[in-house]
Formats: sequence, C-alpha cells, structure tokens
Amino acid sequence: MNITHIEHIGIAVENMEEAIAYYENVLGLTCYAIEEVADQKVKTAFFQVGQTKVELLETTDPDGPIGKFIANRGPGLHHIAFAVDGVADSLQQAEDKGIRLIDKTPRPGAENLRIGFLHPKSTFGALTEFCGKK
Amino acid sequence: MNITHIEHIGIAVENMEEAIAYYENVLGLTCYAIEEVADQKVKTAFFQVGQTKVELLETTDPDGPIGKFIANRGPGLHHIAFAVDGVADSLQQAEDKGIRLIDKTPRPGAENLRIGFLHPKSTFGALTEFCGKK
Repeated sequence: MNITHIEHIGIAVENMEEAIAYYENVLGLTCYAIEEVADQKVKTAFFQVGQTKVELLETTDPDGPIGKFIANRGPGLHHIAFAVDGVADSLQQAEDKGIRLIDKTPRPGAENLRIGFLHPKSTFGALTEFCGKK
Repeated sequence: MNITHIEHIGIAVENMEEAIAYYENVLGLTCYAIEEVADQKVKTAFFQVGQTKVELLETTDPDGPIGKFIANRGPGLHHIAFAVDGVADSLQQAEDKGIRLIDKTPRPGAENLRIGFLHPKSTFGALTEFCGKK
C-alpha cells in the first residue's frame, strides 16, 4: 500500500463547543467545518494543521462508538487516519498480512472520503483508519 | 502562538520490535531512528509520514510515564505534538489562557528538540505537546 500522509487525528470530546473554543482560542487553530456523520453517530469538527487535520468527535448517541469509547476510557485521542492510494486495496493488503479489519470494504466518511478501519487488536492498540478519495 | 504542523503522534507500545514490524511490513513505513530518552524513561522509534512523524514509545521502566499509561489504559495513542515557533513562549501563552501545564519551561526531547506538555485535564483529554527547535 502507499501511505502518503496522516490525513487526520480523531479526538473524542464530550462537549464539542467547549473543545472548539480551546482549539481556536488557545491553540490558534480555525474550525473550518462541522459535519454530522449519521453512519457513525457522531458530529465532527475539523481544523487544518499543516498537511493533517484534527477531527473532533462528539457522539450523537450514547450507544455510538464515540459514546462507548468515552464511557470506557474518557475523552482523548481516538484514532489515527492514514491517507492511502486506494482504500479497498489497502484494506485487502492489510487483511492478507493477517490484520483483523473492522471494515472489510470502504464506507463513506466525513468530508466525502472513503474510509475503513483496522481493528486495534491487530494494530498494537492504536485504532487505525485508511482514508482516500472516491 | 503559531502552530505550523503536527510534528508527531506518540503511540505507546508494549513491544517495540513487534510494533515496528507492523508499521514496516503492513503499513509500508520505514523506521529511520531509534533513540532512548532517559529523561522520559522511554525508547522511541520514528517513522516519517508526510509532514508528520509516528513516534512509538516503549517504556524502559514500569514506573515511567509510558509504563503507567499502559498499566492504566493499555497500549495505543498517547499524545499529539504540535510544532510551534517558540516552545517557551507558547507554553507561557497557554498558561496565560488558563491551561494547566505539565512543563512550565521547555525540556529536551527526542531528536534534539525542545518540548513541553500541556496537562490533559486542560486539553479535553488529549495529552498535548509543543515541540520546537532550539
């Protein structure tokens, strides 16, 4: 597979409004988009930081993946997303090398990207996403 | 403060050798440096991914910060490090805005950088580092 850069870092937050204020007022970053991803039961907020984005994630449902993550571990760093050439091929290549997948095939993510997750049991604890254009 | 990019993402691992094999053989990245940072009781391994590095962290002491982190939360994403112009000034600016600091002044980090951490209680759960050149 060909990883070109880190597309984004996903960070689970309990209160999007308060978190956005910290990223803007303390770190001096700019929130350029807020988007709900119904499929993942989250509201997202994006900040561009050089080549990579910070993606804040607030659950829209306590039983969604971010709701469960925060209930178990508290808010904080949630996943690392690598930009790849070809999400489907990259998922297949990982599976061929023995990696357990959360997504066997790509699904729609925020910002109109195709995404797929590897299981953290196979990635040494770091929830890992592949991201690419359609 | 002026954040230019994400300098690195720190990932706590239990077994550096096995984790490096995953990043190299599955993700196709290249470990370009392994360095021990005695001050932080860690061994680090670096991979360049576009503008940002992945920094794997293995504790050299169960009582070190990475040893404690893994004991409490398991391995996984540990911190996000922003490259800033002027670490000391950026820490001061954050403190002036009410952020609790782990490091009041910069200290030496891996790769001959100056670093300073903000406390995750003040950063919505994401352990956050500022990084800069001397």
